[in-house]
Amino acid sequence: MPQRRIIIIGGVAAGPAAAAEARRSDADAEIILIDRGRDISYSACEMPIYIAGEVASDERLVRFDKQAFEERYGVEVRLETNVLSIDPESRHIVIEDERAGGQESMWYDALVLATGRRAYLPESLRTASHQVHMLRRLEDARLLRARIDAGPTGHLVIVGAGYVGLDAVEAFSRTGWRTTLLTSSGRVLKNGLDASMSRHVVSWLEDHKVSVRAERASGLDVAPDGRIRAVRTEEGERIGCDLVLVAAGTRPNTELAMAAGLKVGASGGIAVNVNLQTSEPAIWACGDLVEYTDAITGSSVMAPLALNAFRSGRVAGRNAARGGRGRAATMGAIVRAAAVSVTGLEIAHTGYSEESAKQSGLDAVGIDIRHRSASSNAPNKTLHVRLVAERGSRRILGAQLVGEEGAAQRANIVTALIRSGATVEDAYNVDYVYTPRLAPAHDALFVAARQLQKALDG
Amino acid sequence: MPQRRIIIIGGVAAGPAAAAEARRSDADAEIILIDRGRDISYSACEMPIYIAGEVASDERLVRFDKQAFEERYGVEVRLETNVLSIDPESRHIVIEDERAGGQESMWYDALVLATGRRAYLPESLRTASHQVHMLRRLEDARLLRARIDAGPTGHLVIVGAGYVGLDAVEAFSRTGWRTTLLTSSGRVLKNGLDASMSRHVVSWLEDHKVSVRAERASGLDVAPDGRIRAVRTEEGERIGCDLVLVAAGTRPNTELAMAAGLKVGASGGIAVNVNLQTSEPAIWACGDLVEYTDAITGSSVMAPLALNAFRSGRVAGRNAARGGRGRAATMGAIVRAAAVSVTGLEIAHTGYSEESAKQSGLDAVGIDIRHRSASSNAPNKTLHVRLVAERGSRRILGAQLVGEEGAAQRANIVTALIRSGATVEDAYNVDYVYTPRLAPAHDALFVAARQLQKALDG
Repeated sequence: MPQRRIIIIGGVAAGPAAAAEARRSDADAEIILIDRGRDISYSACEMPIYIAGEVASDERLVRFDKQAFEERYGVEVRLETNVLSIDPESRHIVIEDERAGGQESMWYDALVLATGRRAYLPESLRTASHQVHMLRRLEDARLLRARIDAGPTGHLVIVGAGYVGLDAVEAFSRTGWRTTLLTSSGRVLKNGLDASMSRHVVSWLEDHKVSVRAERASGLDVAPDGRIRAVRTEEGERIGCDLVLVAAGTRPNTELAMAAGLKVGASGGIAVNVNLQTSEPAIWACGDLVEYTDAITGSSVMAPLALNAFRSGRVAGRNAARGGRGRAATMGAIVRAAAVSVTGLEIAHTGYSEESAKQSGLDAVGIDIRHRSASSNAPNKTLHVRLVAERGSRRILGAQLVGEEGAAQRANIVTALIRSGATVEDAYNVDYVYTPRLAPAHDALFVAARQLQKALDG
Repeated sequence: MPQRRIIIIGGVAAGPAAAAEARRSDADAEIILIDRGRDISYSACEMPIYIAGEVASDERLVRFDKQAFEERYGVEVRLETNVLSIDPESRHIVIEDERAGGQESMWYDALVLATGRRAYLPESLRTASHQVHMLRRLEDARLLRARIDAGPTGHLVIVGAGYVGLDAVEAFSRTGWRTTLLTSSGRVLKNGLDASMSRHVVSWLEDHKVSVRAERASGLDVAPDGRIRAVRTEEGERIGCDLVLVAAGTRPNTELAMAAGLKVGASGGIAVNVNLQTSEPAIWACGDLVEYTDAITGSSVMAPLALNAFRSGRVAGRNAARGGRGRAATMGAIVRAAAVSVTGLEIAHTGYSEESAKQSGLDAVGIDIRHRSASSNAPNKTLHVRLVAERGSRRILGAQLVGEEGAAQRANIVTALIRSGATVEDAYNVDYVYTPRLAPAHDALFVAARQLQKALDG
């Protein structure tokens, strides 16, 4: 068989996983990994730790740099390279080297798209000021770290209270900055937490010197010298600040794929089959820009999470490399589960909130309990749990947990239950371990399941 | 319907749960709770915390005293009362009041046995010395606390390295006592941990000033005044000490039931059906002395755990009270899962160890990994995980976890998987949350599942 050429576009998480797996599957193939930035194979989730100065260098976030990756996997890495177009018919892409300039056409046998997502910048917050930041790529994190290192501390206004917004709170709070979180709904992690659980988080943040304001940013006051003065809000407020971070959500980088005629799904991600093959047979896609199958509803959903990037990268890489030989790898259905730590608070959620379940047409019932991470006779922390089930089937749809300890791992318990199609009775029947210093006699999930049984019965 | 009389024998955990549930099921019944000791409704698992002086009074371990329980549930509580015999034919028991003396015959409509287990005292360690202790009942804990409070600190030799032995290490270590753990096999928690995981625990204990000796206690040196001088071992050693705690296992208190002709199962516990009814139709049994159905093998097993006591107490209490009305409550199959905290180490296990699985005839394969509780870029602790699966079916049989943090709740994740009949692939596919401060990008269970897949394939 002649040597095959596999090109992978996107180098942060799914792309390197795809390249490594392609190499494992085909020792002889020519494998080329292309990224428009200067970095590959880094942990975006660890950027808050770097920004806060808790690791000395951004190298600690990079698993492989270009040279290390090339040597380890025998893959050619092209950085600062834009892909301008894909021609599925002739199996060519056109690339442009940002530094050298000029365009080049490259053929491929198999193409893997791992172009990920980009931060969304609302029109009203676009400015030439260097004091308005995003936090999506490692370059963004370097700028923020440089600003903190340069001093002095000041006031950061964060627009948006999703994961990136909370990451920014965490990083800057630890370095002595004052932070204000602007959330038009008044809620945090709106896609994951119902209103009652969001209130626990907001209350904690306010107790930890984070100002949370239910206002929508409508513009910026920038001085003639380019320095930021304030964020203006639709409510007519003017919030003076030294730095602005826009964390208003992300958008999948699907333009290249769409221009090439690839099918896009209802939720806006690239449509793929279980082998992560796109509507073009020689093109696979993985990571934050594809639609996965949701384990609860069976529908196609976006799930931009690190573990999905890793798993899907491996599947896409193997299938791109197999050239029709052997058995195709498949990507299973996923449960959306995530956690974050902010100013000492653990927040985790898995599956559907009651609100998101209802939006998906499910007849969802949720209950809240307040419990403890351990026995009342041992050191313990308050743990808030919200458990959500479907009324008729009584199957568990999701959980939300907020507390100083014990939230994240308990979310995994519920994820395991959800994946097995467990009912609220199954959740109640789990043999939760009990030892006073680590877990109360009646675990928070046990108590929550009992309360949810009553709510479903009542 | 005439008023029914329900008698419950045993007042620690399952008995009070049965009495409370019987009251909920029948508002009119006469309910009598009998215990041979002076206490009811207390948490035996929290005795180490009390012994170590971390709670001021033993009242903190008692959920209800006699008066509170009687008032709350309208139940007559008889303390320091021995049950001498049961006559299932005539539905009578004979009791003896320890203080008042004299015997009394009492009729019942329904009887619930919750007599639990007792600590086993080997012949060679029987002595009149007041310095040889057990740790089973609240009275035992009071004696130990009194000894610690009286001072001075000294050297405690603990015979046996099961849960009670480790509880004693925990309690006494915290109060400045020197502790020596005698374990004839050289292992700790032998029923739950395979040898490799036991070694991690032993190594930790030795690093934390606990002497662990692979020797078997064969006798005691007691001075003429009754003071303990030393524990002698079969290996010919003489270990000088100030106090001895015998934690050599427990035995179910089945004598009363056996004398009444009730059926006993293969593992030595009272045989019951799914409604926890014994071989005598008007007698139910619950708690530490019954045989449960093991969720993994379907066989009858003992599982003396607090949550089983609570659950089974409720089932037995409801069924004893229903008098043929309504639907009988059932006790589901159980997974044996437990955790303990000792000198800052979390130890947890669920399901079968490789060794216990093989003893049960299962073709078990186990692997060990060493991982971290969180990202290497955040504060994290070492976490040792052992995962066990069945070769042919690839279903998960059990897990063992040892580390400074993150062990107990991860055991619950595996318990949820085991209950659903999950394979090692299912364990790998769980959407483990990732956030650097709380969980590594590839969770310990994810990595363990991957290694176990390889071991099963290889």
